[in-house]
This record gives sequence, structure tokens and C-alpha cells, in this order.
Amino acid sequence: MKSNTYHLHLETESQRAALFHLPESEWLAAAPRHKALAKKLKVTVGWDGDIRDEALKTADFLITNGAPPRDNLRARAPKLKWIQTTAAGVDWLTPLDWLPRDVVLTNNRGAHGPKAYDTVMMALLMLHQKMPALLKHQQAREWRPIYTPPIAGKTAVILGFGDLGEHSGRAAKALGMQVIAVTRQGKPNRHTDRMVKTAQLDRVLPKADYFIVTTPLTAETRGLISRARLNLLKTEASVINIGRSPIIDYEALREKLHNGKLAGAVLDVFDQEPLPADSPWWSTPNTIILPHQSCDDPRYIARLFDFWFANFARFLAGKKLMNMVDRKRGY
Amino acid sequence: MKSNTYHLHLETESQRAALFHLPESEWLAAAPRHKALAKKLKVTVGWDGDIRDEALKTADFLITNGAPPRDNLRARAPKLKWIQTTAAGVDWLTPLDWLPRDVVLTNNRGAHGPKAYDTVMMALLMLHQKMPALLKHQQAREWRPIYTPPIAGKTAVILGFGDLGEHSGRAAKALGMQVIAVTRQGKPNRHTDRMVKTAQLDRVLPKADYFIVTTPLTAETRGLISRARLNLLKTEASVINIGRSPIIDYEALREKLHNGKLAGAVLDVFDQEPLPADSPWWSTPNTIILPHQSCDDPRYIARLFDFWFANFARFLAGKKLMNMVDRKRGY
Repeated sequence: MKSNTYHLHLETESQRAALFHLPESEWLAAAPRHKALAKKLKVTVGWDGDIRDEALKTADFLITNGAPPRDNLRARAPKLKWIQTTAAGVDWLTPLDWLPRDVVLTNNRGAHGPKAYDTVMMALLMLHQKMPALLKHQQAREWRPIYTPPIAGKTAVILGFGDLGEHSGRAAKALGMQVIAVTRQGKPNRHTDRMVKTAQLDRVLPKADYFIVTTPLTAETRGLISRARLNLLKTEASVINIGRSPIIDYEALREKLHNGKLAGAVLDVFDQEPLPADSPWWSTPNTIILPHQSCDDPRYIARLFDFWFANFARFLAGKKLMNMVDRKRGY
Repeated sequence: MKSNTYHLHLETESQRAALFHLPESEWLAAAPRHKALAKKLKVTVGWDGDIRDEALKTADFLITNGAPPRDNLRARAPKLKWIQTTAAGVDWLTPLDWLPRDVVLTNNRGAHGPKAYDTVMMALLMLHQKMPALLKHQQAREWRPIYTPPIAGKTAVILGFGDLGEHSGRAAKALGMQVIAVTRQGKPNRHTDRMVKTAQLDRVLPKADYFIVTTPLTAETRGLISRARLNLLKTEASVINIGRSPIIDYEALREKLHNGKLAGAVLDVFDQEPLPADSPWWSTPNTIILPHQSCDDPRYIARLFDFWFANFARFLAGKKLMNMVDRKRGY
């Protein structure tokens, strides 16, 4: 290997969704878009660990859709400098105590925003226009108009204002809605009307017509939307979750939907995925189930490679990489 | 009646949807918002013709959700100057040969735009994200993700670019779509990327990922979207109709949806409304039925009265009224 050549290993766990696989064909399609950079790379492609241990012996970089080997990683991968995950959320890799101090972990934050914009907009409108009821009527062959005003002027409270949250906020603003965002820092953002810190969550929940959960799952967000907090929502409010399910007390959420104490929900994430056929969620009133797809674009890996090449150029220039995961915060 | 007082008669056909009724209560709620103007009016409220003939003898103005009496109207209503319809479309009153030359007819064009913006946006996203299939899977309790890219970059061809069409165009642009509008005049509009005349319809139909029908029903638009024109659409294209059903050959449309020659449809209007329970439309594949509500806001009559008062101020000032129906074009 020439001295100015780096070894990149692509590792796929095949049981994960095909959307997140890293086949050689996708790499061969992406590399010509970044010719000069691709020349500096030697690439190996592994599946389910078939060549992983051997590849790690010389790998400088790893892109993976699964968990890297956590035991004694430094010894097994002496040259490893940088791990890129195909996922945006890395909750399933935390705590990051296994990650050698001099190995950078980057996630795929930012890949999901544009699709989230579309999905949140659709979810808001479907809930506001009472589509779950209308679709039930269609099935029953009943012509029953439900007149609703435009959604403009209604209030969206958005938990988390990273890539998904900000795109959700943009969607709500494009519909003329009021946007209140809730984040750790509470830093103002132009896609909101009001930004508050997590400590003020209980004060803004009663204002929500639509409560949108977009945060990553961390020690701080797990269980944050407890039964008591759900009880702060108006009966006319609806919930949209494109984050992670353990952030919300789903048992309490389902009870409230079942008892008409919430108007509706669009849920993309569940404790068990695929959601089993006998889950009560499938038939919960006024609830639309999206099978964990709301923020995923089929051009996902092509875009990940483009992002990785841009980051590789920064690496070569000695610049700080984009999307570095904070070891302590875990996202 | 004082000489500077005018007689306004409100006439409701009660069998029409309650949304379009003109009850005294709505008038009494609206009048205080326009005190000075309301003082110049004497108002009568009639239902199903109960006091209509008597009222017309002295009425200067008529607001009606139904058809005015067409026989010999001038003799029956010697002082009548202006008729306002609650509806935006007046196809059901054409031809306008019954309308005395010196009576102005105004429609409620413009009342439907904001709601149309929401509905068209929702319809585009539901079709693009394959919600009809996903909802079917939910019912069958099947977890089957369907990954779709954001809708940005797809092409909407919009037939008609009045109030409904322009709001549809704005919705498509907010989603990052390309917009081609088709109108009689082909006059450029900032909410489009391209504007063509109806004569060029056949050239742009093959470009549509989404074909949106928003035109009023007139002699020119009836049957415009024939079977041959539907055949110009791509198999992957979907159709949204928020205009009137006789504009499209619905039999051909249904066949194409049934045979997978079109990807989907969202239809708000039908030849027979309410759509009978035995209509094949209820179960046509990839089709969402909206019961003629897509552009209707429950605050409809309150807004109509506000609009009418603004027009009444123009009348008093001797200005040209807004929303005058062209006798020849029929809208």
C-alpha cells in the first residue's frame, strides 16, 4: 500500500434493513463522483464479519451499519482513526466507553432532514384533517364530510431541534403554524416562534395542538415524556413521534388514544420493530402506523458516501470532521 | 325604509350542506364586525322559498346558496341589483341567459384557496409516500416499510390557475416541486416554473408526476381530460381532482387505476354526491376518497359575509365589484 493511501473497510450486518447495506455496487457508483479522493483509498467490503478481523488489522477508516467490535478495539485495529455509522442515532452504541480516545466516531445526522420535512408535514395535515376517521368511513363506504379549517395558526411543540426537529419546524412554518421548540440549550432559531429549555417543557406542553418528538434517545430523553407529561397535553392535541419510542411512555399514550384523551397520533418508531402482528397499536383509534421509514430516503447510502467523501477531504486537510459524536452526550 | 337603506335578502336551500346555510345567527355575528355598513341594510332571512317571492319584490341584493328564480326574474325582483352565491363554482347556474343585463352576479371565488393549499399538499405527500398501500398494510397488521425519497424535484402539472390552482401551485413549490400550470391565457405566474395555454396540454401531460385538476366546470373544461388525454400520463403518475368531476372521464380514470396504469388518485368530487355505497370508487386501488370537503373551511359563511361587506363598500363607492362572474365564460 502506498504511503499516501488509506484503507477503508465497509462492514454490513445483513439482517438490518437493506436500505442501510453497504454493497460494493453502491461504492463503485459513488467513487467516480469523487475521483481524486477515491484514488487515495483501498477499500474492502465485508458482510457479517466474514473478513472483519483481518480488515481491521490495517483499516484506517470504518463505515458500518452495525456495532463495531467493542472488546479491545485498539489492539484489534491499531491504525483505526475514524468510524462512520450509517445511522443518525447512535443510542445503541452508548455508553461510548469502548471507543478508543483517539478514534473519532461520526454519525449520519443530517441525512434524514429533507424526508422528515415531508413526513411531518403530511402527518400534521392528516391529523388535522381527521384522515384516520375519513379513511375508516371510506372503508365503510360512508360519505361523511369532516370540515376542518386550514391548519394555519395552530401550535406545534417540537421536542429536539437538531436535523429532524428543525426540518419539522420548517414544515410547520410552511403551514402557517406557530412553532415552540424545546431543547437542552434553548438557543433561538429562525424556524421557531419561541425556543425554551427542557426545564420549561411542562409549561409549553399545554399549548400544543401537535406535539412532535424528534430527539435522539439519550440518558436524558429516555422516559422524558412520562404519563404525567402526556397528561399536560390538551384532549384535542395529537402526537407525532419520529424520534425513538422509549422517549415516550407508550403504554400511557395508547391508553389516552384509546380513551379519546388525545385526538390522534402518527408513530414511526416502536419498542419492538417490526411491530408484531398482535400489537394493539395496529388498531389504536386515530393512529397511523409508519413502519420506521418516515425519515428514510432510498438514496440513503449514495448520500452517505457523498457525505463521507466530503468529510474525508476535511480529514486530509486536517480540519475537524463534521457530525462528530460527543462522547459524553452520546449524540 | 329610509332612502339610503338597502334591502338584502338571504335565501337558503336547507337540503344543501349545512356549511353553506345562511342562518340569521351567522348574520348577527358578522354584522357587528361591519357596523357602519350594516346600518345601511334591512335584512330578511328566508328558507326554502318561504318568504322569497315577497322579499324579492323589494330586495336590492340577494345572497343565496341555491339557484335564484330564473323565470322572469326582472319582473319578480324589480329593484334587484346584485346576486352573491355562497359557492365559488357557478356551473350549475349556467348558461346565464336568465340573468337580467343590469344584475351583477358575484361568486365566492377565493374562499377555498387556503384550505386547498393544505389539502393539495397532503394529497401530494400521501400519494408520493404511498399511504394507500401503507394504510392497507396497517389494517392487515403488516410491517412493510416503503422507502420513498422526498417529493422535491417531482413535477406537478396543474390544470387551472385561479384561486385553487394558485394555492395548489404554492403548495407544490413549498415541497420543492416543479410546477407547470395550464390555463386559457397561459399568463406567467410566480408560483409556477412554466405556464402554458390549454392548447399545449397534450405536450405537458406526459411530464406530470402529479396531475392536479382545479378548473371550474365550463363548456370548455367539460370532458377536457378525456380517455386519450389520461393515456398521455405516465404509469407512475397520480391524479388529484379538487375541481369538478365531469372535467375528467372518470370511467377511464377508474379503469386505469384498477389496472395499475396510474399510480394513485385523491378525488374530492364525483358525478353523484353523496357517492352511493355501491359505487366502485370506494374500493378503487390506491385511491383516497374525500367527501367534497377538500377546500371547505367551517368558518365559510362568516368569511363570506366579511367578503360581501367589503364588496358592499365598493358598491356604495361606485367601484367595480370583486368576483364578478363573466356572463360568457361562465365563471
